[in-house]
Amino acid sequence: MKPLQLALIGLGTVGTGVAKILTEHAERTSRRAGRPIEIRHAVVKNPDKPREIELPAGVVHTDVDKAINDPEVDVVVELIGGISPAREIVLNALKAGKSVVTANKALMCEYGDELFPVAREHGCTIGFEAAVAGGVPIVSGIGQALSGNQVTSIEAILNGTSNFILTRMLDADISYEEAVSEAQALGYAEADPAMDVDGTDAAQKLSLLMLLAGGTRIRPADFTRQGIDRLDLADLQYADELGYAVKLLAIAKLIDDRLEMHVQPTLVKYGRPLSAVDGPQNMIVVEADAVGKVWFAGPGAGMMPTASAVMADIIDAATGRAAETFRTLDLFGEGEPRELVPPSDVRMRYYFRFHVEDRPHVLADIADILGRNKISLASVMQHEAPEVEEGEIDSPFVVPLVVMTHHATEGQVGSAEKELMKLAALRNPWVRMAVAD
Amino acid sequence: MKPLQLALIGLGTVGTGVAKILTEHAERTSRRAGRPIEIRHAVVKNPDKPREIELPAGVVHTDVDKAINDPEVDVVVELIGGISPAREIVLNALKAGKSVVTANKALMCEYGDELFPVAREHGCTIGFEAAVAGGVPIVSGIGQALSGNQVTSIEAILNGTSNFILTRMLDADISYEEAVSEAQALGYAEADPAMDVDGTDAAQKLSLLMLLAGGTRIRPADFTRQGIDRLDLADLQYADELGYAVKLLAIAKLIDDRLEMHVQPTLVKYGRPLSAVDGPQNMIVVEADAVGKVWFAGPGAGMMPTASAVMADIIDAATGRAAETFRTLDLFGEGEPRELVPPSDVRMRYYFRFHVEDRPHVLADIADILGRNKISLASVMQHEAPEVEEGEIDSPFVVPLVVMTHHATEGQVGSAEKELMKLAALRNPWVRMAVAD
Ligand SMILES: NC(=O)c1ccc[n+]([C@@H]2O[C@H](COP(=O)([O-])OP(=O)(O)OC[C@H]3O[C@@H](n4cnc5c(N)ncnc54)[C@H](OP(=O)(O)O)[C@@H]3O)[C@@H](O)[C@H]2O)c1
Ligand SMILES: NC(=O)c1ccc[n+]([C@@H]2O[C@H](COP(=O)([O-])OP(=O)(O)OC[C@H]3O[C@@H](n4cnc5c(N)ncnc54)[C@H](OP(=O)(O)O)[C@@H]3O)[C@@H](O)[C@H]2O)c1
Repeated sequence: MKPLQLALIGLGTVGTGVAKILTEHAERTSRRAGRPIEIRHAVVKNPDKPREIELPAGVVHTDVDKAINDPEVDVVVELIGGISPAREIVLNALKAGKSVVTANKALMCEYGDELFPVAREHGCTIGFEAAVAGGVPIVSGIGQALSGNQVTSIEAILNGTSNFILTRMLDADISYEEAVSEAQALGYAEADPAMDVDGTDAAQKLSLLMLLAGGTRIRPADFTRQGIDRLDLADLQYADELGYAVKLLAIAKLIDDRLEMHVQPTLVKYGRPLSAVDGPQNMIVVEADAVGKVWFAGPGAGMMPTASAVMADIIDAATGRAAETFRTLDLFGEGEPRELVPPSDVRMRYYFRFHVEDRPHVLADIADILGRNKISLASVMQHEAPEVEEGEIDSPFVVPLVVMTHHATEGQVGSAEKELMKLAALRNPWVRMAVAD
Repeated sequence: MKPLQLALIGLGTVGTGVAKILTEHAERTSRRAGRPIEIRHAVVKNPDKPREIELPAGVVHTDVDKAINDPEVDVVVELIGGISPAREIVLNALKAGKSVVTANKALMCEYGDELFPVAREHGCTIGFEAAVAGGVPIVSGIGQALSGNQVTSIEAILNGTSNFILTRMLDADISYEEAVSEAQALGYAEADPAMDVDGTDAAQKLSLLMLLAGGTRIRPADFTRQGIDRLDLADLQYADELGYAVKLLAIAKLIDDRLEMHVQPTLVKYGRPLSAVDGPQNMIVVEADAVGKVWFAGPGAGMMPTASAVMADIIDAATGRAAETFRTLDLFGEGEPRELVPPSDVRMRYYFRFHVEDRPHVLADIADILGRNKISLASVMQHEAPEVEEGEIDSPFVVPLVVMTHHATEGQVGSAEKELMKLAALRNPWVRMAVAD
């Protein structure tokens, strides 16, 4: 059979991994794809950069247009990341009749509704297994393997950077800033980790998973999204003491045919598999009407794990499977439109860590405000000898007070917080996290 | 598009689940399959049996030949189980040009090399997602999603019945026999649970997974296979005390391009995800060269979970994906033939529980025999007040002695056991399990 010809756009971390598999395991790959797979172009920004991988002369160059307009090219593999110029490259590739494989969650999430119709119009496909949870095959897991089901909930750890930071803070007794530096040194966080630690990345991935689960398109801008960047080591320690791990949890639930979605630091009870996911790992717990609960876990990023996912899409394109999947999945098409539960109606349990002046009535005042907003207390924890970080609070008489609530809506919590802000004995800001037992 | 016409052969537990999804979620299923899916025949043994599901008049009947020779039928779904007549039914269906979907691991494992070539010859496909790990999508996981990888090891809990029994014994402090009865009452074990508890079922599934992982055909008869049917509550309790859960573990490892495979009760250190898999759940830990470690877990059996897996294959057949997968996976074809490490060369750590007469020198004698066979002791545990079950041993002076060894080959252990048999102070039989830290 005719070889499948690829144009790799980007030969960075992931691109290099893909090129490694294709060159080091060419025979194995071609057997599994039913035909040889060849790298015809590998487009980069800086052609003089030393590369881990050696490709034949002429393959590595900087001319994107030449690559995507080459009539011999079957599939364009976009691995440069970001929105621009990735968006234009993918658009032009599709218009030139090339199918696309990408690891770019931001592009898929933000511009999928532009790109997918163009792909359909030109008889091409788009594969994005690597865009969610790296090496964990969750895109095909939900989109294909569970297609006999209605997915009813997803609870997931989708950002390895955040999970690494949270794990290290508690394990090594270090601050958020120290853990971020460690993550950067180890390659788990970028120079600017903002999108990872503020919840954006996890929200984009959750949005893509719900699209796969039933065509429902919910944009990250429309649901609650909070990162780990305002957490303190003390919060992880209090949670630990209460029997919980803190995870950046992405949750989507079908409740009476409406969707509840949010991404936020969440207390997960020890003993639950999600609580045991450490370091840069990802885990996705899918609940669906026929199968019940299924767990998927593994490396959420990294050169070779991500390349493994990209390869699955490339092999799917080579066998012809991608075309059938793309046709029937109908992503960003009609789908099964579903209403979003307004964020203010989402019901969760909550954890609060307040800084309060150590004097009578403070707890009563807080309980009163919460109570008037229909939030009842599940537990209260106040240590005699609090661990106070220097400079964090401005008076030695201020102590931490940790409160766990029963279920309440975000609306109730929001209005309680407005009142709490007026309490003189309570210092700003406090920490709030969700609780998923 | 033309509807896909099915002949369900068998409308028992799994068949009923499939019929439920197809009738209760017809619209959703046809959207995802790209065409309607219709049950044209549902063949049973006893047409008068009351059924949980109502199908149109004439659909349910007892004439297998009529169903598989109906020119309108596209796919035959074999859900009767066992070898005969399932084997003949599948053969005849393929010869009549029908693709086959089945949940029958015994048939796939024992007669795959007969059936797959016939399917290829007649341009048909065989799908068997439900044959391994029920609702957990591990067949497509290994066969498709990880196809960019060389799988280097699989460690798995593949028999839900055994896992349920082991979990209940320790949790409820009950005997093996009591736990089996409970499993039967709850529908987790059949009237004759032999194939489940003696390791056959898990061995067949492991054999299928290794076939998917690279075309390597290793028959269960060729590797070590031991069940849970000779274990005692005491063994689970000693293991627990030592910090291990006992699991019926199916292991396959690529070592220097040779395959090591075995299924046996194995001590798994607490803290490892496999140790936390309780009840009828399954878990498969796949290690592969690009992705590293990936975990899949979920319900290994049951009406709706298994139906979920059958539906994935039916939808794959409807979209046309199955044809591409079948062509390139080349199961029971040339494959990547690999030699099996002879069972006697497999290196593991071991747990022994001996019944010894409580007198001097016994431990020294045992240690001496093990030592001469190059097996060194890692730990020894002997309680003052052993929990002895009545009638289990024949003298009050006999006490249990638990020994954990360092790594040794099965050959070394086997020859040590021959010598141990001659020790007068040691009662027969003793219990031996593998240890996977
Ligand atoms: N890294 C991971 O673990 C991971 C995991 C999951 C998903 N992803 C996704 O995978 C994609 C690639 O990530 P990465 O980590 O491989 O990125 P990277 O290491 O920064 O590599 C980017 C590559 O793109 C090239 N490039 C950048 N702009 C270009 C332009 N305008 N024209 C041509 N080439 C250009 C760069 O060229 P030079 O080499 O010349 O600089 C480089 O080879 C992103 O969408 C990312 O979100 C990454
Ligand atoms: N049950 C599970 O949880 C599970 C999980 C994974 C895989 N599987 C596999 O799925 C398959 C089906 O299992 P199951 O539990 O659904 O079995 P089951 O409940 O015993 O149902 C068997 C069905 O086949 C019919 N049947 C038996 N012999 C027949 C014959 N000669 N001609 C026509 N029909 C015949 C029976 O008819 P009547 O109804 O008239 O008796 C019944 O409807 C097996 O291969 C099993 O290993 C099952």
